[in-house]
Parts: sequence; C-alpha cells; structure tokens
Amino acid sequence: MPLDAPAGARADLPAGVNPILVEVTRGPIIESRHRGSAAIVDIAGKVVRSWGDHATAVFPRSAIKPLQAISLVESGAAERFGLGDAEIALACASHGGEKRHTETVTAWLAKAGLAGDDLKCGTHWPMHDETMRAMAAAGQAPCPIHNNCSGKHCGFLATAVHMGEPTKGYIRFEHPVQQRILGVLEAMCGIGLGKAPRGIDGCSIPTIAIPLENMAYGMARFGAPDDLPEARAAACRRISQAVAAEPFMVAGSGRYCSAVMAVTGRSVLLKTGAEGVFCASLPEYGLGVALKCDDGATRASEIMMSAVLRHIGVLTEEMEAKLARRIVTPLENRNGIHVGDVRPTAAFSE
Amino acid sequence: MPLDAPAGARADLPAGVNPILVEVTRGPIIESRHRGSAAIVDIAGKVVRSWGDHATAVFPRSAIKPLQAISLVESGAAERFGLGDAEIALACASHGGEKRHTETVTAWLAKAGLAGDDLKCGTHWPMHDETMRAMAAAGQAPCPIHNNCSGKHCGFLATAVHMGEPTKGYIRFEHPVQQRILGVLEAMCGIGLGKAPRGIDGCSIPTIAIPLENMAYGMARFGAPDDLPEARAAACRRISQAVAAEPFMVAGSGRYCSAVMAVTGRSVLLKTGAEGVFCASLPEYGLGVALKCDDGATRASEIMMSAVLRHIGVLTEEMEAKLARRIVTPLENRNGIHVGDVRPTAAFSE
Repeated sequence: MPLDAPAGARADLPAGVNPILVEVTRGPIIESRHRGSAAIVDIAGKVVRSWGDHATAVFPRSAIKPLQAISLVESGAAERFGLGDAEIALACASHGGEKRHTETVTAWLAKAGLAGDDLKCGTHWPMHDETMRAMAAAGQAPCPIHNNCSGKHCGFLATAVHMGEPTKGYIRFEHPVQQRILGVLEAMCGIGLGKAPRGIDGCSIPTIAIPLENMAYGMARFGAPDDLPEARAAACRRISQAVAAEPFMVAGSGRYCSAVMAVTGRSVLLKTGAEGVFCASLPEYGLGVALKCDDGATRASEIMMSAVLRHIGVLTEEMEAKLARRIVTPLENRNGIHVGDVRPTAAFSE
Repeated sequence: MPLDAPAGARADLPAGVNPILVEVTRGPIIESRHRGSAAIVDIAGKVVRSWGDHATAVFPRSAIKPLQAISLVESGAAERFGLGDAEIALACASHGGEKRHTETVTAWLAKAGLAGDDLKCGTHWPMHDETMRAMAAAGQAPCPIHNNCSGKHCGFLATAVHMGEPTKGYIRFEHPVQQRILGVLEAMCGIGLGKAPRGIDGCSIPTIAIPLENMAYGMARFGAPDDLPEARAAACRRISQAVAAEPFMVAGSGRYCSAVMAVTGRSVLLKTGAEGVFCASLPEYGLGVALKCDDGATRASEIMMSAVLRHIGVLTEEMEAKLARRIVTPLENRNGIHVGDVRPTAAFSE
C-alpha cells in the first residue's frame, strides 16, 4: 500500500500541531477553534489530499462500524437469520434509541434466539431526547437495547451463533468474533494490528488504534470493492446498499449521518465516531475519507466531513442547498436568535 | 493597571498556538487534546503566571456572573427585596433547574412583583438530567424559570424595578441595567469596553469581549475589594459570602462549581461559562484567575481550573483527596469500566 508523505502541511505550524479546520463564531469574533486532521485516500492506497497529521494511529471508535459489520454478512449469518436492510444498517449504527431502532433490535434478537440481556454493551438513556422523555413519561427505564451500539452488538452475537461460537465473552479481544473483525480490519486497512495500541470502547468492545490514512484506505476499498475476494466484495456491497436504503437506522432523527445520507443517496456512506472521528466511503470516486478533530468535538468533526465532501466535489448544488445547515451550522440561542456559526476554515479552500 | 508581557509562552509554539493543557487518555494512548490559555493576576493588575495567549479579548459568557451581580447588591435592590444568600448566589448561577433552584426563583419573582413571563432568557429543559426526566414523567414542560440563567435575570429585573427603570427590554445592550453592568465591568477589569466586540449570549443578553488578563484582574479585585469604593467593596463581600454559604445554588448536584466550592469554602469563588471559559477569585491570595479552552470544551476547562488552583497552592491535601475526580476525571464506559482519564498536562508543572 503506497501511502504518500503528508500533503497539506503548513509551513507556519510546527510538527504535531494540526491546522484549525473549524471555527465557531459569535457576533464579530471567533469564539472557539477546532484543530484536526483528515485524509482522502484512493483504492490504490494513495493519499490524494490531507490536512494535518494522518499517520499517527488513533482509535476509530464507532466510525468504522461498517467495516466491523463485514463478517456478519461475509460469514453468512445475515442470510441465515434473514436480515434485511434495516438490520444490516443497524449493525453499522450509533442509533438514537428511537422506537424503530429498538423494535428492530428486539425482533432481530428473537430471530437469533437471543434476548436483551445477551447484549453486553451496557445501558444508557436513548440519545434521542424526545424518545428519552417519552420513556420517562411512560415510567420506563432504559436497557441495553437502547444503547446506541445495540445493533452492532446484535451483529456480533448473530455471527457467533451462526459460527457455533459461544456468545459468552463476545466483547473480549480474545473472542473469535473480535479476532475475526481484527483480521478484516487488517486486510481492509492494509496494516498489521496485532501489536497496535488497544483501548476499551464505550460499549466495552476493544478499539484498536489505526492511522487515519489506513482507515481512509479501508473505507475506499469498502465502497469500491472490486479488487477484494468475491465473498468480501459481496459483503461490502450488501452493507453499502443496506445503509443507503435505511439511512435512518444508522443514526436517527435530526442526526448528521442520517440527514446527509438521506440526501446523497448511494454516493456517500458516512459513519461518525466518538471523540471527533469520522469516516466516509465514496464508491463513485473510489475514495475513502477518515478524519479526527483533535479535541474530540462532534460539532466540529461533522463540519469537517461536510467540508471534505465539498472539496471532493461529491455534493451537487441541490444537495448543498438541502444540507446548508450541515455545511455551516447556525448557532441559535434559547430565544431562537442567530448568534453565530460553526463553519469550516479557509484550510479547506487551499 | 500594569499587565506584564505574557509569561509561560513556549518557544516551540508559534504565536497564536496555545499549549495543550488537558489531554484525554484511552488505554495506552492520548485520544484527544485540549489547548487553552490562562492567567493568574493579582489585585495590582500584575500577571503573576500565565499559559498561552491571555491578551486577546474573548467572550466571558457566564464566567463573570459574580461581577454582573454587583449592581443588584450595590444598588440596594437586594436589601429592598430582602434577598438572602440563596437568591444572591442564584444571581451568580448557571443552575441545573433543580427543585430548590426553581422554587427560589419563583419566590424571588413574587417578592419583586414579577412573574415567570417577565424573564426573557428563553426556555430549555433543566440541565440536571434527573430533574428533567422527573418533569417529563409528571407531564410538565419547561418554562424560562428552568433556564440556567433565570437567577441572573431575576437580578437584572429586581435591579430595574428598584431603580424605577422599565423592566421591558432589560436584556438589550442599551437598557440601563446592561449599561450599568458595562460600567461595573469596565471599572472592575480596568478596561474600556465601549467599543469592545459584542455578541449575544445564550440567554439573549449582550456578552462583551474582555481579555483573560482583565477578567482575572476583575476577579482578583472582586475577592479582595479593600481598595474599591465602599459600596462596591461591600457588594463584592456580600456576594462572595452568599456564594460560599450556598454553593449548590451556583450550579447544582454533581456539578463542578458547586462540588469544588463545597470543599474549598471561602478560599475560592468559582464560576464556569459556556465555550470553555472559567473564572475564579482567591481572596486570601489576592488573586484572580481567568482561562479559556480553545475549543470550548467544559470537560477541559474544569480540569484546567483544578490545575491552576493546585498551581497556586490553594488546595490542601485533604481538599485534593476529596476533589480527586475534579483534578483527574476518570472516564467510565457504559459498563462502568475505567477506560481512560481527562487529565492536566505537564504544562502546569513547569
């Protein structure tokens, strides 16, 4: 995999200082600044454009869920349990815990002979505020099904059941489910990960550090998988198709990933992750994108992703008009007054 | 006001790049980084220690609420309406909308012959999650009394009523209430603000840009006001005493400002603001502190403030033991597993 030397480095910044990619205005001044790095990589592994340091390994967190879902389909588990677009999209999701998300998870668990307490992702209130308050109003408490990662965990469990592996311990690094995914990540991203730094994710599975340039390479190949082995290529295509058909399932009402993919259709597959990581695949261009906001802010990683998509030229004028608030986010205060904006810096115009 | 040249600037950082003051670890790596600037200033206006750029004007947001409360006391309005420690602390608050906060606001409005719809701060659900869900469970909807700034707005309204000014338009820059506060800020912070950059805050009042070094100077004099005119000095002392007596009213359950002041007592007055601003006064040392996280993250500004307090030496060993999670915040995932930390960098040890 040929990976070029960093492009887009700025002479006025010392090594290790990433450029300011997003700024937050209020009235006449810039109130806050977000630094970050990003890489656009093609299916040959060439870094075609980059901002900041994209060679240091970072935890991909939830931004590589589409890659983590590959073995669910490739293993035959998805076919075995009759999973449709909704379930496969949910396997790639950080969902808001809205009714359709949780009902689909519940039905999927039943198809695989499992129940909510088989999920070891932990519990939190739905990220979707209205759903959370409706639950509170109904006297309900959250369970692991409401966890934003419950669809991904269903994918892990379904794969284990299909492969005849114990479901117990499926979140552990040593479990065959996680080892299989490690192998998929190594192959897709073109990097050995056996000794890569390892952390524990919010939902308790391992998260393995990967350089942004390798994540982007993996996403490029995921979107344009013709050179991959047939079973893997078919799995990548099936997942891309499912996400494009069910963008709501990947995030939810009002959320960036769902809103943007609802507009872009099959031309972009997007997935956000905690701590400001974001990945995308652009099948028509044979490109993958990976980026991280230094400070972990999602408000900034989203604007960075929009700026990168615009830089590539994937957004038509009509799409840009529909996604105006995702390109520059107006900040409105408690009285609905427009007080500032979250906007990309000139770094993306250079 | 003598303000020294920036101290603590690092030779390896170009102008305009603030140092990394807080880092977020996960497993063996640093996952996210927060840059920022801070100034410790004495009552003579001398910058005794600083990190990064503290000369550029930034919006103080809610971090100067104690200074904005001065005219409520100085004007005689607090005495006129028989306000106690709870109300005066609430005038300095970004509260969680917990029951005691909102009951106190409601009673205060009645004392001044006002009602909830006189508050023009806008509406949001209580920041305190349990209170918000309890309201949802009871079928209640939020009103301006639940706004975290409602106590500050009660202070504005009470001052207007006491002074015989119209309450209408009290949030506007031109209104006597806001003009009076502008004058207090100029005098306390030692800087002309007539032409300072002006934005609109979350609660719709003006926010006026002030350099961190001037904010810190204002906070130093607020805590050790002997050199101020008698009525102002008395107002500063009254507010400090009220906040020390009622730290819960300034923020709420589980919140940094309340938790730290409950432990430090009268030795520190703290106030956080949106977009990573934080102010403190240390009366016994005759020092004021102002800091801002570049990217606006509260998780980082809190750790920065703890590090500055430790640097000054205001925290005893016993206080540090009680505040361990406020000095280095352990990150626990959805299963309660310790996965990383939010911690100060070595910049504070230099």
